[in-house]
Amino acid sequence: MTGAAVVFLIAYSYQVLARPASTLLTEGIMNVIWVLFVVDYVVSLILSDNRQFWFFRHLFDLATVVLPMLRPLRLLRLFMVLKVLNRTSGMALRGRIAIYVVGAVAMMIYVGALTVYDVEQYSPDRQIDDFGDAVWWAFVTVTTVGYGDYAPVTWQGRLVAAALMLGGITLIGVVSAMVASWIMERVQVGNQKMFTQNLEAHIEANLEAQLSRELNEDAKADAARDAQLEAKIDALSAQIALLTAERNAHKPS
Amino acid sequence: MTGAAVVFLIAYSYQVLARPASTLLTEGIMNVIWVLFVVDYVVSLILSDNRQFWFFRHLFDLATVVLPMLRPLRLLRLFMVLKVLNRTSGMALRGRIAIYVVGAVAMMIYVGALTVYDVEQYSPDRQIDDFGDAVWWAFVTVTTVGYGDYAPVTWQGRLVAAALMLGGITLIGVVSAMVASWIMERVQVGNQKMFTQNLEAHIEANLEAQLSRELNEDAKADAARDAQLEAKIDALSAQIALLTAERNAHKPS
Amino acid sequence: MTGAAVVFLIAYSYQVLARPASTLLTEGIMNVIWVLFVVDYVVSLILSDNRQFWFFRHLFDLATVVLPMLRPLRLLRLFMVLKVLNRTSGMALRGRIAIYVVGAVAMMIYVGALTVYDVEQYSPDRQIDDFGDAVWWAFVTVTTVGYGDYAPVTWQGRLVAAALMLGGITLIGVVSAMVASWIMERVQVGNQKMFTQNLEAHIEANLEAQLSRELNEDAKADAARDAQLEAKIDALSAQIALLTAERNAHKPS
Amino acid sequence: MTGAAVVFLIAYSYQVLARPASTLLTEGIMNVIWVLFVVDYVVSLILSDNRQFWFFRHLFDLATVVLPMLRPLRLLRLFMVLKVLNRTSGMALRGRIAIYVVGAVAMMIYVGALTVYDVEQYSPDRQIDDFGDAVWWAFVTVTTVGYGDYAPVTWQGRLVAAALMLGGITLIGVVSAMVASWIMERVQVGNQKMFTQNLEAHIEANLEAQLSRELNEDAKADAARDAQLEAKIDALSAQIALLTAERNAHKPS
Repeated sequence: MTGAAVVFLIAYSYQVLARPASTLLTEGIMNVIWVLFVVDYVVSLILSDNRQFWFFRHLFDLATVVLPMLRPLRLLRLFMVLKVLNRTSGMALRGRIAIYVVGAVAMMIYVGALTVYDVEQYSPDRQIDDFGDAVWWAFVTVTTVGYGDYAPVTWQGRLVAAALMLGGITLIGVVSAMVASWIMERVQVGNQKMFTQNLEAHIEANLEAQLSRELNEDAKADAARDAQLEAKIDALSAQIALLTAERNAHKPS
Repeated sequence: MTGAAVVFLIAYSYQVLARPASTLLTEGIMNVIWVLFVVDYVVSLILSDNRQFWFFRHLFDLATVVLPMLRPLRLLRLFMVLKVLNRTSGMALRGRIAIYVVGAVAMMIYVGALTVYDVEQYSPDRQIDDFGDAVWWAFVTVTTVGYGDYAPVTWQGRLVAAALMLGGITLIGVVSAMVASWIMERVQVGNQKMFTQNLEAHIEANLEAQLSRELNEDAKADAARDAQLEAKIDALSAQIALLTAERNAHKPS
Repeated sequence: MTGAAVVFLIAYSYQVLARPASTLLTEGIMNVIWVLFVVDYVVSLILSDNRQFWFFRHLFDLATVVLPMLRPLRLLRLFMVLKVLNRTSGMALRGRIAIYVVGAVAMMIYVGALTVYDVEQYSPDRQIDDFGDAVWWAFVTVTTVGYGDYAPVTWQGRLVAAALMLGGITLIGVVSAMVASWIMERVQVGNQKMFTQNLEAHIEANLEAQLSRELNEDAKADAARDAQLEAKIDALSAQIALLTAERNAHKPS
Repeated sequence: MTGAAVVFLIAYSYQVLARPASTLLTEGIMNVIWVLFVVDYVVSLILSDNRQFWFFRHLFDLATVVLPMLRPLRLLRLFMVLKVLNRTSGMALRGRIAIYVVGAVAMMIYVGALTVYDVEQYSPDRQIDDFGDAVWWAFVTVTTVGYGDYAPVTWQGRLVAAALMLGGITLIGVVSAMVASWIMERVQVGNQKMFTQNLEAHIEANLEAQLSRELNEDAKADAARDAQLEAKIDALSAQIALLTAERNAHKPS
């Protein structure tokens, strides 16, 4: 289906940008792909275990079936795959997000400009009358700068604009988040190192000292008791030695 | 009171959007609800333990009494309830915030567009002369894009715009924060795991080794002392054996 | 000096907003206060230990001396004092920042609108010709919405606008940061709790078990050695008992 | 090469801003520097170990060769050096980032305004017709305010605008991130302190108590066994004493 979306995007781009006299071929290709999407959607819905659940989880798919122009946005899933694929270190995570965001924003600008250029062309009050202007407008919108030198006047164009604006807010959010993550990682690693060292020092100073002291006291008590035993055995030994000496003194008599 | 706010919003929407010839009914409903609000406010104020404190904590309520159009915004509290209800894991927290933010932004856009459309209609210089344009304008304002193709010209409309702009800044903040939280959680979990493992390794290497060595030394000292005692007892035993052997040697004589 | 700044702000507001026929009094007050500022600046500079260092640390003061209109912004320091005063828990920190930011933004909008209204009034191309419009413009600028329905045309007005825009970017940053801090605190507390518990469990399972085992082995070795000693003493006791019994058996013979 | 970039920037600024009748000299200087850049690029490419890898890592250098106006932006690397130089504590890191960002934004505004002023001057529909306006426009763009009172109309100017907008989004991101880092460091240090203390308390309460109890039991068992030995030795001693006393009683008989 991804390949079909690519073909659809190319055919749609050709039809919108070239505005050829005869659009029969591209129109035909797009209709075929659209039918493909509808069939894909219906079959997926029927085959799903829990149709109601599937329906709510795939509202965006329904939107792409009703508004085929949105379909190319599903290509973004390709990036998503990249992202999910391997998640190892923090640096790598930010790298993957950066690549994904650059790709997603570029695609959003292209698809947004194309769609707005397409839907605005029949409005008599149109301000966007050139694909270059449409790309410029999409860029100005995504960055939330919004000069207002061009603005969509049809409700379809405004829907696309709304999507671009939300994308722009997300873009700001992701950029902020990535810088914040980078700064805080550096600051935090230092903080955590400090806390870990404090904790280690505390454990050594308190726990180890306490247990050593107890061990020492036990050892001393042990030694004292052993010394007492030794003294008693010595006394006994002396007693017996006296006994032996006495008997030896008797013997000659 | 939430139900009253919903009814008020519906009646107000009908009156603003349909602009019926006779607005007696909706006007009547809205006046009744407004009186309800005033009564609710006054009664709450009188019943409160500390009236002065209550007054300052409920300034927004006073605003909704004076400007009844703001009342529907109190519906946002419903979402707040949802948020406070259950706070378990991080993922779930972000999910609840996302739902709340989407709901709050949608409501702000609707109420903002409605109010601006209402208050701007009597201005001769008005730029917003259509509810669709008002929604478009509200969206452009909330995302801080601000094309400037439509802008409020009355001070009431500008007050609403100011509220929308503040909402938009908060929206950017929340989106940034949620992405940042997500990224940093992933990065941090790795960092913390590393620190925890380092700490564990350190404790094992240092504390455990130190205590084991002390235990070992104690055990050796114990064993040495016990060996000494044993030697003395052996010596004593030998002495007595000698004594016995001597006596046995005497006996026959 | 803070009081002087307040008086200056009031006099300046009166002169700009009322545009009285005779501005002799307010002009006089403002000149007096300006002289006060210059004297304060020069005296501070002369009295400072390290004049060069002081000069670079107080560039903003120099700016307020040269452009007296900026002086009221020094009132923001009052909030700063509040912030520095007591720094206890995280919640309280965010609360204080919120209060400071609200105050700072309100003051920036007021002073910005006042100054722009003042400097723009002599330009023939002026778009901002009303204090209400100036406040509206300042608000639109601070939130980075930038409709463009009003924009300063003089370089002085644009300088003020630049300051407001920078304030706006900082505002977005602070809001993002506060939401992020709030979300992450909740998420992180959970994570850290988990890590702490894992660490505790690990220490208990490994370190405690290991030391217990060693203690146990030592105790067993001890008991074994003691049992050996006991056996020897028992043997000795038996020997002596035999000796005694033999002698008792002899005695009668 | 940095010096060459500075000379290039000065020559370019002079040519664009002064618009002298004869631009032969500045044009000559710029051509010489441009040739220098091309030579530098080609030589670096040939000398690199892995040409393909080098090519992809230095795409920005290729851009500066093709569009010499971008060259001054390489000066930003100077700041980068500062940043990489010494990375110690969190506070210092944020300080260095702040300095770098202020420098980078100022340079971006200057180079952006210069380039747009240069490329727009030949367009008949141009809105930016004054270097002051160009700087104002660049500032409005970088802060993403986007009044729309001036906007580039040529594709080259719009490319520059796109770069400025991306810079602006990054600026918002960096400001958010720095405030967030500052707030969270304060909040987090408190949290981590709490967790560390909890962990310490737990270790003391559980591990230490458990080990102390075991040590105590061992010591008691030891003492008991020693007391038993002592009792046996005492008994033995009493036996021998009896033997001695009996023999002494016999002797006289």
